[in-house]
Order: sequence, then C-alpha cells, then structure tokens
Amino acid sequence: MNLILIQPWEWPHNDNQGEITLQDQRHHHIYKIIKAKPGDSLRVGLLNGMMGRGDVIHIDKQAIRLQVTLDTPPPKPLPVTLLLALPRPRVLQRTMQACATLGVKDIFLINTQRVEKSYWHTPLLADDTVQQALFAGLEQGRDTLLPNVYMRQRFKPFVEDELPNLIADKQAWVAHPMADAPACPSGVRDACVLAVGPEGGFVPYEIQQLAELGFTGIQLGPRILKVETAIPALLGKLFL
Amino acid sequence: MNLILIQPWEWPHNDNQGEITLQDQRHHHIYKIIKAKPGDSLRVGLLNGMMGRGDVIHIDKQAIRLQVTLDTPPPKPLPVTLLLALPRPRVLQRTMQACATLGVKDIFLINTQRVEKSYWHTPLLADDTVQQALFAGLEQGRDTLLPNVYMRQRFKPFVEDELPNLIADKQAWVAHPMADAPACPSGVRDACVLAVGPEGGFVPYEIQQLAELGFTGIQLGPRILKVETAIPALLGKLFL
Repeated sequence: MNLILIQPWEWPHNDNQGEITLQDQRHHHIYKIIKAKPGDSLRVGLLNGMMGRGDVIHIDKQAIRLQVTLDTPPPKPLPVTLLLALPRPRVLQRTMQACATLGVKDIFLINTQRVEKSYWHTPLLADDTVQQALFAGLEQGRDTLLPNVYMRQRFKPFVEDELPNLIADKQAWVAHPMADAPACPSGVRDACVLAVGPEGGFVPYEIQQLAELGFTGIQLGPRILKVETAIPALLGKLFL
Repeated sequence: MNLILIQPWEWPHNDNQGEITLQDQRHHHIYKIIKAKPGDSLRVGLLNGMMGRGDVIHIDKQAIRLQVTLDTPPPKPLPVTLLLALPRPRVLQRTMQACATLGVKDIFLINTQRVEKSYWHTPLLADDTVQQALFAGLEQGRDTLLPNVYMRQRFKPFVEDELPNLIADKQAWVAHPMADAPACPSGVRDACVLAVGPEGGFVPYEIQQLAELGFTGIQLGPRILKVETAIPALLGKLFL
C-alpha cells in the first residue's frame, strides 16, 4: 500500500484539510506492516480527488488518527480506452489491479468467441470484487481516479452499436500476433483505443469486424504472451 | 500450452526428425484441452534446440504418438541480463514464467536490504520448481532456450566481484522511481543489463553502489509498479 485511499463518504470536510480516523484493514496495515508512529507522515489520497499527506496524530491497536492535507493532483491517466476479452476470474483480478496501477481509466470487458461462457458467471466479476481490485491497484500506483469498468456480454451489438462512437477521431489498435502486423508504436500521447483478445486470440471474423471499423493490428513479436503479461508489456511500450 | 516442449533425454534421434510418445501432463493437455486427433499438427520444440511440428499419429487416453519435424530456430532472445531483487515466492514463480515467455535468458536473483530473509528459504526457490516455471514460460511464449537463473544471496560480493564483468561494454540501467531519472528508452537492440529492485525499492546505498559501477537510473513515470507489472512493462518498453 503506497497510498492510503480514503472514500468520499469518509471525508466530511469541505476543504482539503482535516482529521480522519481509520479502524479497518488500512489501520491494520499501517499499524502492523508500516509500523507508523505519531509524527510520521503517510501518503493519502481521496478517491476521485486530490492526494497529499496524512500526519499521524495518534495510533494504537484500535485505530489511527491522521491530520490530512490534500494538495497534489493525481498522476495523469493513460490516454487509452482498453477493450479486453474477459479473462478467467483470477487473471481478471490481477489484470484489473494492474490496469488501475498503470493508469488505465476506461476498461470494457467484452465477450468474444474464445471467452468461456462460465467466466461471465463468476462471483469475482461482482461489482464490489472488481472495485476491490481497482482500489488495490490505485493504492499500489499512487492514484485516486477510479477506472470505469463496463461489461459487454454480446460482441456484435457492442461492436456495431457502441464501438464506432468510442473510436471516433481516435487511433484504434488491436493487439494480435499477425505475421504482417507492424510493431507496437511507442511514446503515444493522443487518445486511443486498444483491443486485447482472449487466450487463443480473436477469431478471424472478430479481427475482420474490428478492421472494418478502422482498427489496425499491432504486435509485440513472435512470442505468445499471457493476458497478464501482455497488458503491462503493451501499455509500457505504448505509453510509459 | 502453445508449444509442446520435449526434454533432450526424451529425444533419442540424432537428426531433426523422429517419433516420440508422450504420457504425462503434456499428453493429458493435448488429449483433454486441445482435443487433438490423428492427422492434426501441433507445435513442438526440443529444449535448447529447434522447434517445428508434431503430427499426431495416434492418440488415446493413455498416450499420444507424434511424428516430429524440427526445422525452425527458436525466436531471438532479448539482449538483456536481468538483475532482480528476489521477490516473494508466489511473485517469483509468476515473474520467472513471464521472463521465460518474454525471452529473457540470464536472470540473477539478488539479495538487497529490502528483500525479506525468509524468501531465500522458500521451497519455491528449489531448482526444479524454478525450472517448472521456466518451462511453462517457454511453452507459453513458444521458445526452447531455457533461461539461466543464478542466485546471489550476498549483495556486496556480487556487486563488487561479479557485476563489473557482467556489465563490461554494456549499457546498464537500474529501474528506480527517481525524480530526475530519464524515461526508459525504447527499441534497444544492444546487449544490456537491467536491475530491478524489491518492493520498497533499492536503498540509497545500493543505488549509489550501482551508480558507481556505471548504472544509469531509468523510470516509467510517477506510478509505483509491482514487480510482476514492472518487468513486462520495462521489457515491453525497452525491447518489444
């Protein structure tokens, strides 16, 4: 935990300064792992708000009281909308966390032919479970802006009705190990859309649908990467 | 499993063609998951040797017999020697697998001040456990060249006695979120050394030691990445 994330409903103050008392797993982490003492200063951020520091006023095994000052904007988001074929549940969790850490703010979890139907029915896809992964990712990456995660369980209506608007005026890429695809670009600053397929990849029909909308294939070389490896590799190459 | 990896002791043939019978978890995977049938062609590679295809001659629930032709060299390794502060056991496994998938061939697991001592005593650090992770990574990435993993449990002797030779004539980088470090370069083709610290980072003394040897700091922006996210992001940015 590189940032203590405060929920808006925990923050009764109208300005960017005030006291807060924590008693949950954040307190536990600060007390047991960080072993903070009165006078220590910790990094704090308000969900979807500013970041700053929390000076420890009091800490014991029940609770921690912090004097919080929020004076720094969160880091700049990556300029990408990510379309991700729904991965299997455990990979989903790690991937959502990594996306939040890396600064992705718009994630569409989509269905494709090679996504196993059962993945749509896992308890790990529940709103609050996904949010926990996103919170953990923000705490890791020192960010406060919660990513938006949208579920799109039908490929065709999503691609036909929604995707044209999503990619309007943007560069749109599909990461796919095609022999003739150009290498993944680097140093991208403009708003763009990146589609990443499931294990086994998009099927030709899906690639064709995306290509017809204006998606260009990009690839990272001959090696087949797992989703959880491909996402940081792609985002690192494109934006970092 | 995107490649069926054959161990040299399983390959009695002197040339690049011959039959092989598999009865272990590779057979199980091909039989149950891939559901291959006689006549199907599967990707096959000989550990530290050539890759090619295996045509299914016979398959049943006991075994699979393949007619193997090895005619393709494995993909080019990444030109990097990776120095990695020993991560906690589960992260180590995932990271070794990801390194093998991405094409890293020389990995030094090193001790640093913020590496927990207990990490050096985990059963997951046993040679054959690390090798299983590397095999899985090669099967995922379609490669046959087994990475070399070296354990260096003492930082100072490693840095003073061994590291100068390792980095001779090479660019050497240490990934460290320093305010003044330049952004991570891209499109690197020359042999280089990359040092990645533990959770919590290298301590100033360690950074100084590395800097004195000629290491240059690089960073991926203001976000603090987990090791398992940082490695693919760095390797993607530098080499893919």
